[in-house]
Amino acid sequence: MKKFMDEDFLLSTDTAKHLFFDYAKDMPIIDYHCHLSPREIAEDAKFDNITQLWLGGDHYKWRQMRSNGVEEKYITGDATDREKFQKWAETLEMAVGNPLYHWSHLELQRYFGYHRALNGDTAEEVWQLCNEKIKGMSARQLILDSNVEMLATTDDPVDDLHWHKQIAEDESFPVKVLPAFRPDKALGIEKEGFTDYVESLSRAAEMEIQSFEDVKEALKKRILYFHEMGCCISDHGLERVMYLDATEEDADRIFRKKLSGESLSETEVQQYKLRLLLFLGQQYHKYGWVMQLHYGVKRDNDKKRFEELGPDTGFDCISTSAPVNELADFLNALAYTGELPKTILYSLNPIDNAAIGSIIGCFQTSEAVGKIQHGSAWWFNDNKTGMMEQMTSLANQGLLGNFIGMLTDSRSFLSYTRHEYFRRIACELIGGWVENGEYPDDEKSLQKIIEGIAYKNAKRYFEI
Amino acid sequence: MKKFMDEDFLLSTDTAKHLFFDYAKDMPIIDYHCHLSPREIAEDAKFDNITQLWLGGDHYKWRQMRSNGVEEKYITGDATDREKFQKWAETLEMAVGNPLYHWSHLELQRYFGYHRALNGDTAEEVWQLCNEKIKGMSARQLILDSNVEMLATTDDPVDDLHWHKQIAEDESFPVKVLPAFRPDKALGIEKEGFTDYVESLSRAAEMEIQSFEDVKEALKKRILYFHEMGCCISDHGLERVMYLDATEEDADRIFRKKLSGESLSETEVQQYKLRLLLFLGQQYHKYGWVMQLHYGVKRDNDKKRFEELGPDTGFDCISTSAPVNELADFLNALAYTGELPKTILYSLNPIDNAAIGSIIGCFQTSEAVGKIQHGSAWWFNDNKTGMMEQMTSLANQGLLGNFIGMLTDSRSFLSYTRHEYFRRIACELIGGWVENGEYPDDEKSLQKIIEGIAYKNAKRYFEI
Amino acid sequence: MKKFMDEDFLLSTDTAKHLFFDYAKDMPIIDYHCHLSPREIAEDAKFDNITQLWLGGDHYKWRQMRSNGVEEKYITGDATDREKFQKWAETLEMAVGNPLYHWSHLELQRYFGYHRALNGDTAEEVWQLCNEKIKGMSARQLILDSNVEMLATTDDPVDDLHWHKQIAEDESFPVKVLPAFRPDKALGIEKEGFTDYVESLSRAAEMEIQSFEDVKEALKKRILYFHEMGCCISDHGLERVMYLDATEEDADRIFRKKLSGESLSETEVQQYKLRLLLFLGQQYHKYGWVMQLHYGVKRDNDKKRFEELGPDTGFDCISTSAPVNELADFLNALAYTGELPKTILYSLNPIDNAAIGSIIGCFQTSEAVGKIQHGSAWWFNDNKTGMMEQMTSLANQGLLGNFIGMLTDSRSFLSYTRHEYFRRIACELIGGWVENGEYPDDEKSLQKIIEGIAYKNAKRYFEI
Repeated sequence: MKKFMDEDFLLSTDTAKHLFFDYAKDMPIIDYHCHLSPREIAEDAKFDNITQLWLGGDHYKWRQMRSNGVEEKYITGDATDREKFQKWAETLEMAVGNPLYHWSHLELQRYFGYHRALNGDTAEEVWQLCNEKIKGMSARQLILDSNVEMLATTDDPVDDLHWHKQIAEDESFPVKVLPAFRPDKALGIEKEGFTDYVESLSRAAEMEIQSFEDVKEALKKRILYFHEMGCCISDHGLERVMYLDATEEDADRIFRKKLSGESLSETEVQQYKLRLLLFLGQQYHKYGWVMQLHYGVKRDNDKKRFEELGPDTGFDCISTSAPVNELADFLNALAYTGELPKTILYSLNPIDNAAIGSIIGCFQTSEAVGKIQHGSAWWFNDNKTGMMEQMTSLANQGLLGNFIGMLTDSRSFLSYTRHEYFRRIACELIGGWVENGEYPDDEKSLQKIIEGIAYKNAKRYFEI
Repeated sequence: MKKFMDEDFLLSTDTAKHLFFDYAKDMPIIDYHCHLSPREIAEDAKFDNITQLWLGGDHYKWRQMRSNGVEEKYITGDATDREKFQKWAETLEMAVGNPLYHWSHLELQRYFGYHRALNGDTAEEVWQLCNEKIKGMSARQLILDSNVEMLATTDDPVDDLHWHKQIAEDESFPVKVLPAFRPDKALGIEKEGFTDYVESLSRAAEMEIQSFEDVKEALKKRILYFHEMGCCISDHGLERVMYLDATEEDADRIFRKKLSGESLSETEVQQYKLRLLLFLGQQYHKYGWVMQLHYGVKRDNDKKRFEELGPDTGFDCISTSAPVNELADFLNALAYTGELPKTILYSLNPIDNAAIGSIIGCFQTSEAVGKIQHGSAWWFNDNKTGMMEQMTSLANQGLLGNFIGMLTDSRSFLSYTRHEYFRRIACELIGGWVENGEYPDDEKSLQKIIEGIAYKNAKRYFEI
Repeated sequence: MKKFMDEDFLLSTDTAKHLFFDYAKDMPIIDYHCHLSPREIAEDAKFDNITQLWLGGDHYKWRQMRSNGVEEKYITGDATDREKFQKWAETLEMAVGNPLYHWSHLELQRYFGYHRALNGDTAEEVWQLCNEKIKGMSARQLILDSNVEMLATTDDPVDDLHWHKQIAEDESFPVKVLPAFRPDKALGIEKEGFTDYVESLSRAAEMEIQSFEDVKEALKKRILYFHEMGCCISDHGLERVMYLDATEEDADRIFRKKLSGESLSETEVQQYKLRLLLFLGQQYHKYGWVMQLHYGVKRDNDKKRFEELGPDTGFDCISTSAPVNELADFLNALAYTGELPKTILYSLNPIDNAAIGSIIGCFQTSEAVGKIQHGSAWWFNDNKTGMMEQMTSLANQGLLGNFIGMLTDSRSFLSYTRHEYFRRIACELIGGWVENGEYPDDEKSLQKIIEGIAYKNAKRYFEI
């Protein structure tokens, strides 16, 4: 029996260990998609206790606590931080096989030096230990200690990016903290608050917005601004990637209809989104940016709780109404005019893996090595099984050697251990093939592949 | 090489063996969903020969015999029981990797003491042995020998449950034999015989049924009756879980239309079902019952054979028109008013695993530990692969430690070995994680988790 | 660590090795579906160099080169064969876990005696070695050396099959080279060139074609002709298997509409296809042919590249709009009148595995052992993972022992090593079950199963 999460965690063969310790482990981290607060980085935030760090905004953990029958009081309610921590520790004990079990313990090991198991019985000693160590921690120190070279936050087009500017100008902090352009609110014409958002965009772009043409012009200006601020990545959260008949005139009519207070049909919503997303894709291509498409999500399913707690509180699920056929047609629409940017595709539904692998193979060109990427296992799939399946699928259908690898997608400064988790799994997978005679035990090739997946492919891809 | 299905069957590590033999093996069985005949239990049925027990009504086996090119005469026709047994034995030999291979041999081992392999050559000795042993067997003895604490049958709302009453009143038989409420015929407004069924329901509820309101009132009375008879579980067999626009007025109009002999559109059928299913869910919540939703089935596909042999004869398949998005909306409709009962979701399509895992996580509350459950791998998935995948998916997305585990879903008194099969697989899975350092080798936690999945979680969940 | 692709490649247990070396390895090959050129076989084609053999028309390899950022010049363009080979060798190095890695090296080992790894550094020695050996190779010699007993090409109904006749009449070549009937162009009423094709069919059938009845009559004549030429297999490439309301009158009206130059709705296209496909199925049943249905493909997704390079150049992907429910209804329509032929179902989407397994189980009859087959893992799934999953799914739901096994689906005379690849994987899978005590270590049964899957089941199924 292997010891619980020891230094060989997830590494079962000599080759896997060799690949991890000699090539993967010490590579810097390029965390090209996360939800960290640039303000907290700029201000070098400090933390009071482990509950704030772990349970302050982490809906992954909240869901599991509800699964364990814990009252909301101890999750998002007014119980004390110590009480909440106890409930979390008791929940974690039942989470056998869950990635939160591994993530939590990796964080306890790497950032707090705690190597036993957290459960109801050990909660008190972990609470004491963590809170003691937290006194010496800060946002920047955690980033530096994690060997991060670059991280990209997630930012609205109207954001003035002044925290990013402040960080960039501070020579004492060498990590690149780049903005990423996420225009979900400009696309979300079906959402409450859209017209208010258009006003914000109008102010940010310093121009009137009366037409679809104006929307595009305003976003163009914001893209240019983001570009000047070092941005090279965009991101989109979509229920589905759409493709349907729609002209610029349609989009303009629909936009004006919305502004005039009329309600839109589902088709009109999709038409508007399609035209805007195509425009955005063209802009990204012009600037050499990467387009990330995160799709297959059905959000805020428990409407009552959504009304009480707002979005991103643990009530989202996988959508199965995301036809990959439309995704292929969407990519073709951009490729046809030579304006398809580098693109990363993420579906929340793991059954899309094979289809995505087959689609990315249709749109590769010499513009970039691995121009179209199958994004790393995302959200509900961000676990050992999900990563193994995503990488195996990618390997079967494309070139795993060109994969740009992991990102944290996280709001927490402790999440960099997910890169370690991913690297261990990648080394276990590829090392296993070598051990099984399926790939040669060739140091030169293996080093190239492992260092590539861990770090170098992302560095080349994002051109940083 | 391990010996063929020896005592360590499916257990490859020391931890897996420890978990199975020390914690799982001797737990009582709570078989919360089966299709046993309460009459056969009340009358303590005896059996003539192994063909009657095995091939009398088991469409799983019939399908495989047809796959082996066996003529229908030897399956559902007038060949002798000995001839049919021979054909089955020859078929089984080709079923390498099929759960029937394991189920059949587990039954031969545990109930008949036969430890070799059944095939065409050994059919005669197995036939002789089994038929000798069958003389001493009876329904109740098999249930008692299998360490069953509770079993829930599957019963129509119009059933008077007099066999259940007779069993309950018989103090010589300590096993709880509870009815479960399955109102498929009341929901099946598109089926031939629906109006006849409404008449049966009218008689059972002792009231006129002229309106949708009457249907609900009649079912309410039957739910109360079932409740008084100890029922705490409902079940529904659905092609899909639907959610669409429909009011009570719609349902009433549609019901009257049907009674008047008019035909209904597919939309009307779904509207009626939705309104009735929502009403039923509210009732289940009121009584603290569990709602089981079995969906994703396309039935009676070979229409010719269906006309000849009727339903449940081996001509059903997985439906892929079961959008999980509607399932989420259906659950929300009940949750919004605080009337979502404890619910178990089963899809016949294994590709729904991840989506189901993500949906149950949206509706968990402190009303119960693991209030919304991802049901054990069902029917075509009730095999080692299917169980491993269902439990792995559940573990990745939720709390496997709160899983209520296995049920037989069977018509046969020999099927309790499926609980052993399941427990071995669960111990192999979790034991493997412990051996691999992915969960601590902590006796207290492991005992809690294994005993929970095998027995205690179901006991808590059904409150028996 | 196992040596790279040594003689025990993919065989990890003693039983797996025993099954492969003693039962599977030396079985003849029945390659019941390929895309070899009958002309090249008739003329016993010779080859100039390894680039021509490997990269002349292999869109699998082209896709990977594009994924590696290789310019089109080195793929389908005017670079030299040596340059193209270099780019391929460099690409292959990054294809860790990809079946092309294994296929390419199996071919290098078996046909060229090269046992090291091909990459950028070794490209020159491989180029020299292969081109030297290629001088002594020919199409027929490769087929004979590969122990092929029968192969079925893919032929249009209008083909006069004169190359097949020439091969059949040549007594010096003992391999059966049979035509297979692929009427995709007759079904492709939505395609450009359909009316031209109708003219070709008219000439081939020596009759006027003015109506849907005429189309059927002409195809009937061609089926008879193919039958007389030894054909026993048909094949269809479909985006989806359709089932919807459509009469013969609909089909006739739609066909005439098309001939008159009018455009058709998507529904009309599907209606025409359905009626014609049902007719074809009935004909196949009459002649005892096998019907192959390959579905779930979305073709030519990069329209720009399609315009430049034509079809089958690497721009196809998995379609997710292929509802298996319609597939079940389509099969029922033929079964209802007793005219369902032996049928092999292949979906390009691996998530259809379970559904297909459940559907084939609905239509098995005593007309043939394993009458309806779940086709071997196809195209994007033709890899170790895909084969393992297809066989595991088939085993879970049906009788793996009756599986007709592998086909190359290839344009290359070197692809017979894919049968070896498949046989190793099948022996690894089944041998693993035996080693794990899940199936008895019974020589008689295992020999029957392994020889069956490798060769004998196909021989029985195609009645050759």
